Amino acid sequence: MKNEMVLQKISQAVEILKEKNIDMWLTFTRESGNIKDPMMDMIVGTNCTWQSAFIITKSGDTVAIVGSLEAPNMETTATYKIVKGYLKSVKDDLLETLRKYDPKKIAINFSRNSTLADGMTHGMYLELIEHLEGTPYKSCLISSEDIISALRGRKSEAEIALMKEAIKHTLEIFDEVTGFIKPGVTEAEIASFIQSMVIARGFGFAWDIEHCPAVFTGPDTAGAHSGPTDREVKFGHVLNIDFGINYKGYCSDLQRTWYICREGETSAPEEVMKGFNTIKESIRLAAKELKPGKQGCEIDDIARNYIVSKGYGEYPHALGHQIGRFAHDGGGLLSPRWERYGNLPYLPVEENQVFTIEPRLTIEGYGIATIEEEVIVKKDGCEFISSPQEEIYLIK
Amino acid sequence: MKNEMVLQKISQAVEILKEKNIDMWLTFTRESGNIKDPMMDMIVGTNCTWQSAFIITKSGDTVAIVGSLEAPNMETTATYKIVKGYLKSVKDDLLETLRKYDPKKIAINFSRNSTLADGMTHGMYLELIEHLEGTPYKSCLISSEDIISALRGRKSEAEIALMKEAIKHTLEIFDEVTGFIKPGVTEAEIASFIQSMVIARGFGFAWDIEHCPAVFTGPDTAGAHSGPTDREVKFGHVLNIDFGINYKGYCSDLQRTWYICREGETSAPEEVMKGFNTIKESIRLAAKELKPGKQGCEIDDIARNYIVSKGYGEYPHALGHQIGRFAHDGGGLLSPRWERYGNLPYLPVEENQVFTIEPRLTIEGYGIATIEEEVIVKKDGCEFISSPQEEIYLIK
Repeated sequence: MKNEMVLQKISQAVEILKEKNIDMWLTFTRESGNIKDPMMDMIVGTNCTWQSAFIITKSGDTVAIVGSLEAPNMETTATYKIVKGYLKSVKDDLLETLRKYDPKKIAINFSRNSTLADGMTHGMYLELIEHLEGTPYKSCLISSEDIISALRGRKSEAEIALMKEAIKHTLEIFDEVTGFIKPGVTEAEIASFIQSMVIARGFGFAWDIEHCPAVFTGPDTAGAHSGPTDREVKFGHVLNIDFGINYKGYCSDLQRTWYICREGETSAPEEVMKGFNTIKESIRLAAKELKPGKQGCEIDDIARNYIVSKGYGEYPHALGHQIGRFAHDGGGLLSPRWERYGNLPYLPVEENQVFTIEPRLTIEGYGIATIEEEVIVKKDGCEFISSPQEEIYLIK
Repeated sequence: MKNEMVLQKISQAVEILKEKNIDMWLTFTRESGNIKDPMMDMIVGTNCTWQSAFIITKSGDTVAIVGSLEAPNMETTATYKIVKGYLKSVKDDLLETLRKYDPKKIAINFSRNSTLADGMTHGMYLELIEHLEGTPYKSCLISSEDIISALRGRKSEAEIALMKEAIKHTLEIFDEVTGFIKPGVTEAEIASFIQSMVIARGFGFAWDIEHCPAVFTGPDTAGAHSGPTDREVKFGHVLNIDFGINYKGYCSDLQRTWYICREGETSAPEEVMKGFNTIKESIRLAAKELKPGKQGCEIDDIARNYIVSKGYGEYPHALGHQIGRFAHDGGGLLSPRWERYGNLPYLPVEENQVFTIEPRLTIEGYGIATIEEEVIVKKDGCEFISSPQEEIYLIK
């Protein structure tokens, strides 16, 4: 089953190579136990120790060149048609394979913009260049970022089904959390409560457990990407949680917001409602325009400008990211045009990409309001695959 | 406690920078959730999302430059004295920090030889070079491999204590396995039995669970680094297991060999004993010469030549590797002078390094004989920290 998914993605890669007219895609890597190319799980399906080359050609061939001790394992994994095991150096088999296919354009696993396409370390790049010295192939190298952006972005039906399951289980856990939140409970206790449910149900975590979930309560919290603290939930706090699971290799990533009613309150105060509704409306407006061909930065603009127009500060991050095997997946981002995002804000949105939408604002004196939903891009627009949070959750 | 270990390793790094006269060590990385620099756990102690610079100076200062959203988390982690959070690009804070310390020699996280020193992706290298364009620092860059080799190799007492615990638990599990092995049981069943013990005892695995443990029975097995199969244990098989756990962040890596007696046998046949004893003696001879100042390839020679002198083929891998937080750790290797090992066979052995010693040979018609022990290098020689296998384990 696992290798079936790899074979499907390899077939999809061949189609993408044809579409983009790239003759060969070479993933060059080593010691995946220490530092693992982020594409290994998707297009190889096992690990490697010594310098290894995983080659997919436009003609549909696949060649794995690995250390001889790992050739039997690669054959058992059965994701590459040709497996070559070498003893002393990868170079001879690599050059022989290049000569056989004589590619004019070779995409390799590096990218300035996309981490997921940037699995080749600089040391391995220098090794590759030395192997290719004196051949015409040294000048044929391009980044694999376009291939990887398409391959990771365009989800298959099997992938979407798993992602919907991941979301369903995540929302069920959020439902349970509402019964646990009360004044006096700490952020760390809420996080432990959630983590024990994840473990009991046999799921993994979508990101590092130090801040999965992230829990923020009240007006004086740490920023996003911080771990939960011993800060206690108090009456009048706005509380939010950022959380996702890993379900059979695929991640969810959602945020929800609660308000802890003070004595006598039966709803949240007006300032809190304004903040919450501003977030909700900014998501609706952004989602309305999210469709194939748009640039991510155009979508970020919509939510960002709307929030600022309501008198709040800009959120210090992107509106949303793609999600899949990793919580941060795919190429294009729904992000502002900041240098730190490279070319990712400008990549056109494509059908079957799954994005998060996760604006944020601070409600002075109360806390942080955030909602994070997941949407899938369809031909003419996008559809929510998480059941959206319509009302702030009240703790009475 | 966890951060205490990081702070200890940072102090050790400062001493190494002085010893090697390197002004600054810069680890430049991003999105550790997707591809994580192998040094992060040892010298940072948390993760990062956006381009981040972790700087340790010869003068003992530490500066972390991270995305603004992650600055509070970095401050909570408390492993770096100065934490700078940036919004749009890492460049300004990075250049300001470089100007402040004005280093003449900057070690960065790339290496052709050592995976553990090669955490910078090629895309990130290109980013760094662009940030440094027009400054004198672009020409000050060297590989951090010497620093990392020393830092990971020279184990502290706290590290050695954890590694001894890991070995103790591993050997206890091996003891239990002896009662489980019998004709008709498959390699995969033996592996499951071991894995369920690891999980029940709350340990992690030292490497990928697809082949941790690796189990090989009889004369027709797959090569090393393959996963266990449905091949059944039979009378007259030599069986060996390669297995390690992760105990509180530190790994063990050991191999043991069994013989399944045929009806009427009370000991292993002469050919099997010769193979087993050849392995045992080759380990003893190699360990006798393993001491500070030797090159790893000299030690590999000893075991390799001894095994060949007894009429067996050469093992198609290194005699041993360092071990620590990773199963394959540190710099220098006890390996032959093959191109695939780069400069690692030539690095001098140092005090407080922990090595595996793991020769292998095939006993025709019976199976593979291997023993893997762990040793720590002391001033005048090395000491076994695993209790060595002296006799082949018999299944009667």
